[in-house]
Amino acid sequence: MKTAITEMFGVDVPILAFSHCRDVVAAVSKAGGMGVLGAVAHSDSQLEIDLAWIEDEIGDRPYGVDLIVPAKYAGDDAGGMDLADLVAMIPDEHRAFVDDILRRYEVPELPDDERSGRGLLGSDGAAPFSANRADPQLEIALAHRPALVVNALGPPPAHMIERVREEGRKVGALAGAAQHAERHVNAGVDVIIAQGSEAGGHTGEIGTMVLIPEIVDAVGDAAAVLGAGGIGRGRQMAAAMALGAQGVWCGSVWLTTDEAETHPAVKEKFLAATSADTVRSRSRTGKHARQLVTAWTEEWDRADTPDPLGMPLQPMLVDDAIRRIDRAAHHEGTGANRLANYFVGQVVGTMNESKPAARVVYEMIEEFIESVERLNTQLAD
Amino acid sequence: MKTAITEMFGVDVPILAFSHCRDVVAAVSKAGGMGVLGAVAHSDSQLEIDLAWIEDEIGDRPYGVDLIVPAKYAGDDAGGMDLADLVAMIPDEHRAFVDDILRRYEVPELPDDERSGRGLLGSDGAAPFSANRADPQLEIALAHRPALVVNALGPPPAHMIERVREEGRKVGALAGAAQHAERHVNAGVDVIIAQGSEAGGHTGEIGTMVLIPEIVDAVGDAAAVLGAGGIGRGRQMAAAMALGAQGVWCGSVWLTTDEAETHPAVKEKFLAATSADTVRSRSRTGKHARQLVTAWTEEWDRADTPDPLGMPLQPMLVDDAIRRIDRAAHHEGTGANRLANYFVGQVVGTMNESKPAARVVYEMIEEFIESVERLNTQLAD
Repeated sequence: MKTAITEMFGVDVPILAFSHCRDVVAAVSKAGGMGVLGAVAHSDSQLEIDLAWIEDEIGDRPYGVDLIVPAKYAGDDAGGMDLADLVAMIPDEHRAFVDDILRRYEVPELPDDERSGRGLLGSDGAAPFSANRADPQLEIALAHRPALVVNALGPPPAHMIERVREEGRKVGALAGAAQHAERHVNAGVDVIIAQGSEAGGHTGEIGTMVLIPEIVDAVGDAAAVLGAGGIGRGRQMAAAMALGAQGVWCGSVWLTTDEAETHPAVKEKFLAATSADTVRSRSRTGKHARQLVTAWTEEWDRADTPDPLGMPLQPMLVDDAIRRIDRAAHHEGTGANRLANYFVGQVVGTMNESKPAARVVYEMIEEFIESVERLNTQLAD
Repeated sequence: MKTAITEMFGVDVPILAFSHCRDVVAAVSKAGGMGVLGAVAHSDSQLEIDLAWIEDEIGDRPYGVDLIVPAKYAGDDAGGMDLADLVAMIPDEHRAFVDDILRRYEVPELPDDERSGRGLLGSDGAAPFSANRADPQLEIALAHRPALVVNALGPPPAHMIERVREEGRKVGALAGAAQHAERHVNAGVDVIIAQGSEAGGHTGEIGTMVLIPEIVDAVGDAAAVLGAGGIGRGRQMAAAMALGAQGVWCGSVWLTTDEAETHPAVKEKFLAATSADTVRSRSRTGKHARQLVTAWTEEWDRADTPDPLGMPLQPMLVDDAIRRIDRAAHHEGTGANRLANYFVGQVVGTMNESKPAARVVYEMIEEFIESVERLNTQLAD
């Protein structure tokens, strides 16, 4: 295949695979697509290790890295706030509600040595989702050879774009609306990920079917566009490219692959879920993020429970709770098992079988080709 | 072109156009697609007139009719309720809220001879959205020669399917989830309209990109599938068919055509709106229906205002109010103008120019062909 994306990265097929799991990243790059490592939960040292591992695995094939640096968050107004200031902004009502959930669902405490939200905090103790957290990661990434560095949430800051381009790599950014894509392109972004509402994780309200052509038209030749949100199989890849995208960006579909480090209890839920079993909820990150409907999202959705806080307060509030839940979620029938969830898009409805990531890629290409051939037959007759 | 849909109806292109406006229906059938008249707001006599007019206009080309017969509604439990019983179920709080909106936005009263919700009530005084209302319409339709009779909301009742098939016509039904499509097919429906969340009017939460392949797989060869929701141009038609649909069902895109009887003030708003300017709201019909965001939807969305009632109570509650608003909405800057809205899908963002309905069809086909050719080039290289 040949599109702006295959040309830009020298890949066989324009399938980009976002995953927090280095094994998925390597498997997709080796299968002819391009893995992109989601690094937000990585410590600096773990990022070093994983990038070195990936490069060792894939040889001279390309891969990418995804960091989260939001443009602004709840702590921004005050300027120069440290972690303690942020912690003090969390209302007692919210703490009490989280404690109440954990008590009612009988979720065991964490052992002492696992407390305090390390999952979201950098080794330097910087607040989650901050530039302080991302800048060292960016430099670690650039000391390696990812072909693409993506900012997953909001516009990539100017210094990030400069540094990545200085090093001769491409910059990517997600957009949920045409005006976001235009802003990214004006700032120097090379690859726009046009992500519709169907997607897992942070996502807007405009559906992929409407969003992709709007962004393709808004961006013109100034950047390459990847379609995302609801893309997990070949027909969806063909649809995204029929809409004008030069490739696809998939995240959810890897979560049930053999390589994925998805929590086993959550993986089981994903395999059983239908496309109606997700919800855009602010309960994990403070921003609307599509995730599996479980007792967790239902608790936060009730009319008599507090509204989630903003970012980064909500993840600070719930981080330990989620780790407690995940730690205890392995046994069906427990409260923790009922609460356990994770980000996933509406394609979860067709993720019904665990399989190797490479097979997902090959099946996607096969169905893509069938889909294009069927269109040709319909048109020619 | 040749698909299950072009074969079934003998049309040149598998584009079905849902419209309340007979001129749009005729224009699309004459342009090689197939118009489908939305008849819910038609009196029996007006339906007679419009079907005769359409048949006179289009000669032996095919067309369809769309009726709304929900499976159940708020009045069902009590059994045998008449209109007065239903009216008595509307809470005073809701009446007061509607009156308050009209007062605050300074919407003039209706003249005496225009009151009492005739828009939604049959000439026989039956409650809106009831079988009592739809059965005479069905017989009027079958006394004419529509090739397709669609039930827009919920499963078509068994007697409707029987009557339509007895007369040798095809039955269509909308589905927002795979299990709805399966139920329709088991009941004998010939054409499934797989309508994703992007659509205008009554619509679910699953995006078109995910929904179409799920329904195509669920239905197999037992029915033809039309893709709907976010389809307004050729790239979207190509995407829907890449996903496995055998044609498309478009509604919103006709609302800004030259032929459409869209309220002029609302048409102006549609031409100016972006894809982010719609919302799924229960404020007009009692069921989630995507419509333009205006002061009307914002009033109903506020935390301190009552939740909309169910169907048919909500339309009975707001019918006169909407007619008051529409009657007075012609002048910009008035409260009525700010309130005025209508059902429309997210494709409203690309409906930026009023044009003849036939041109919409021709442009859609042209862009469809370009899109398939681009896919071929990308695949071949």
